[in-house]
Formats: sequence, C-alpha cells, structure tokens
Amino acid sequence: MTSKKSKVPSLNTVLSPSLLKLYDISNSTVVIIDILRATSTIAAALYNGAKAVIPVDSVADCIKLGKQMEVITAGERDGKIAEGLQYGNTPLQYTADFIKGKTLVLTTTNGTKLLHVALAANAKGIITGSFCNISSVCDYLVNQKTNVILACAAWKNRINIEDTLFAGAVMNRVKENFDINCDASQIAETLYLQAKGDLLGFMQEKNASHYHRLMNFGLEKDIEFCLTEDNANIPTLYSGGRLIAG
Amino acid sequence: MTSKKSKVPSLNTVLSPSLLKLYDISNSTVVIIDILRATSTIAAALYNGAKAVIPVDSVADCIKLGKQMEVITAGERDGKIAEGLQYGNTPLQYTADFIKGKTLVLTTTNGTKLLHVALAANAKGIITGSFCNISSVCDYLVNQKTNVILACAAWKNRINIEDTLFAGAVMNRVKENFDINCDASQIAETLYLQAKGDLLGFMQEKNASHYHRLMNFGLEKDIEFCLTEDNANIPTLYSGGRLIAG
Repeated sequence: MTSKKSKVPSLNTVLSPSLLKLYDISNSTVVIIDILRATSTIAAALYNGAKAVIPVDSVADCIKLGKQMEVITAGERDGKIAEGLQYGNTPLQYTADFIKGKTLVLTTTNGTKLLHVALAANAKGIITGSFCNISSVCDYLVNQKTNVILACAAWKNRINIEDTLFAGAVMNRVKENFDINCDASQIAETLYLQAKGDLLGFMQEKNASHYHRLMNFGLEKDIEFCLTEDNANIPTLYSGGRLIAG
Repeated sequence: MTSKKSKVPSLNTVLSPSLLKLYDISNSTVVIIDILRATSTIAAALYNGAKAVIPVDSVADCIKLGKQMEVITAGERDGKIAEGLQYGNTPLQYTADFIKGKTLVLTTTNGTKLLHVALAANAKGIITGSFCNISSVCDYLVNQKTNVILACAAWKNRINIEDTLFAGAVMNRVKENFDINCDASQIAETLYLQAKGDLLGFMQEKNASHYHRLMNFGLEKDIEFCLTEDNANIPTLYSGGRLIAG
C-alpha cells in the first residue's frame, strides 16, 4: 500500500452459496469456484480461443439462447449432459480446433447458478477461478486491490473438498495483500497445505463425494485436468452477461 | 453390526446453522456444538451438579422464565453478559458450590439458537457437545447407532474454527462406526489432525475470530477450559425442554 489513504482490502471465503447472503458483496470482486467442472471448463474454452462463454442458470434458457444465437449449447445436471443440450461439461472437449472463435452457452448444476446469485446480490465484479488458471486469478485479485469473496459453488449447497482446496490455494498465494479476518479462509488454507503435494491423491484418500460421482462416470481424465495448475492460464472475467478472456 | 438387518448409520457435519436445512434430521441425533462457550458451559454446569439447564433463544424469554421459575438466569450476546440477566456464559463460574442442585436458564448468541432450529426441524434426538465432555459424546453416539449430524453453531452463521475442530475430533474418534459420505466431515477431521497437538496455539496462529473476540474481553482462562478434553465428562442430553446429565 503506497498511499496513506489506501486501505488494505479484505478477503473472505464462502464455502457454500447458502452463506453468500451473510456478506455485503457490493464492494467486492466475487470469484466463482466450481472446480469439478464448470469453472475449469470455462478456463479451458476461453484459453483455447472461445469468443465468449455465456453462463445461464437453467437448461431451458440454455436451449432457447442457443437457438436464438445459433451457438453451441452445453451443460450438465448431476454430472451428466443435460437433455436437449449438445455438449457436456468436460474441459477436455473444448480444444482450439473445436471452440476457437465460437460462443458457448453453458449451464451447470452449481457453478453457473452461483454466478447468478452473485449477480443478483450486486457483486462489484465477478470472475471465475479454477486450478487451470490459478496464477491469472491471483494476479488479477492482487492488482485489483478491491475486497475479495472466494465463493465456492459446492454441491447443491453442501460444502465440498475441491472448491475448498482452491479457495485455500488462492488464500495461500495472496494473503499478504489482504486483511483476513475469516475462519473459513484459514480452514481452507489448512486443508490446501495438507493436500498440495498430491491433490488427486488427497481427493481419493478423503473419499471426496464429487470425485466419486465423476469417477463412476469414467471421468478420471477430467478430474486430473481440473486439478492441474495453470494449464489454461488466462483471466476469465464476467462482463455484460458474458465470460471473456481478460 | 450384529444383525443382518442392521444398517451402518450415517454421520454428517454441518458447519453453519444456515446449512442445517439441507439435511433431513428427523432420523438423526443432532449434536449442538458451540465450543466458545455455550456447550462448554452446559457441560460444566451439569457436571458440577446442576439439576438442569433450560436453553432459551431470546434474552426476553430468559428473563421471563427466570422470574416464573425463580431460578438462575444467564447468557450473553456478542460475547458479553446480556442486559437483564444475572450471569454470563463463562464455564468457570459454574462450580459445584454455585450450581449444585440448581436450575439454570441460558441464552447465547449462537448455540441456544441453533438448538431451537434443530428442535423446529424435528430432530430425532438432541445432545450438546464440547471438548469438555468429548468422550461422553462419542460413547453416546456410538452406542445409539442412529444417524448423526454434527451441527456447528458458528458465529452468526459464519463458519468458525473451534466448532469445526470439535466436529473433526468427534469424526476422528467415531468414524469406524458410521457411513461417512460428507466432505465437510473430512475437512473438519483434516483441520483437527493439524491442530490436535496444541488446540490453543492453533487458534492463536490461525487468528481465529472468536478467539480474538474473547481474548479482548480478558477471557483466556475460559478459552483454555473450553479447549480441554474431558474436564466435565458427562453426556448432556436434551429432553422435555431441558438439558440434563445423561
């Protein structure tokens, strides 16, 4: 902080969308975190040249908008491709060959819903975060110098390990730049420090519920991708109803 | 499990009262956890011979019931003795000399409120839990063989470290007896395993928010008492509107 007037911004972690209402987010940048797999897929698509990702919170809206705009529709419910949509929520699908220059309309069980909750609560700014673009996320937050809410999408509002791990990883990297008076951030960082040597092994050992759900669908490669740092390392910013590369 | 028909009961951890509604608790024993300090005080009072502790969720009800029953009233709001009540929420006050044979009407910021939420949601059974009576709590849960919800009172619905630590300690002791498909329980246990050698030091190192709040009131001895295992080791059971020693 160089100016005498500058105040160190705060950082808070919200482990379930149900708890977001406890915070005034109108002065905060909200980081939407849905590691398995929405925010990882968003990073992959934008990194590989997608023009934009339009997050919508219902399958019906996704189908409707896809037709109106003549663009790709994708999304899942309960971990599987939702009926009526063209593609799923696997980041591996969104290669440059497939997605470059295109617009994707996306709906997911938890991540895109949380984004709309943050919008409704008048967040000052919204970005998405994943291990795939963690360095860009941290750089963005440190440079912005606004209050930060790390908002985990969880699973139908139940706290999950993977989103908590990511919040902890961000906390661990940026904490010197923020005023932190938030037990959830400390809990998340402690978890991350235990897991960081082998995130996949930790998820397996701890019997993480969504890890199992996706493994049962044969999606091990997806999980590996989503737990890899900086394999789609660009900022992913919400602006004017669309997520775009920063 | 001896009978062929018996099913291993489940265990879930709920880190904030706001999340309790996500669970059907009508078949569960709910453990109310408010380490600093309601459930530690309840354990101390009942261990030292209190006839009963009557938890009420408002200061007004506490005053009214205290007059009607001609009993001791106690409670706090925001960590301090609430106006109109006789005593505070410090477990050290409830020695045998003071409390033996007496009834205490108690209201607190978070713990007694959560107990009433659990009652309203039709919990099958309710007990309170604290480090002060952790062995009794674990024995009770293992013997009951019903589903368990470890319900943290938190601080005005924001997740806190000390209640999460206790949930993790219970999880760590009883997990072989339950079916656990709950990321929050795994997170809590991981936190506990990091902290267990020095709970007080961990709270201090992690800048735990309520630790600071109480330290500012000069309540270090209270915190030490509340983080000590089995110094008031009896089951504390809710029955007929009252908490009693089991």
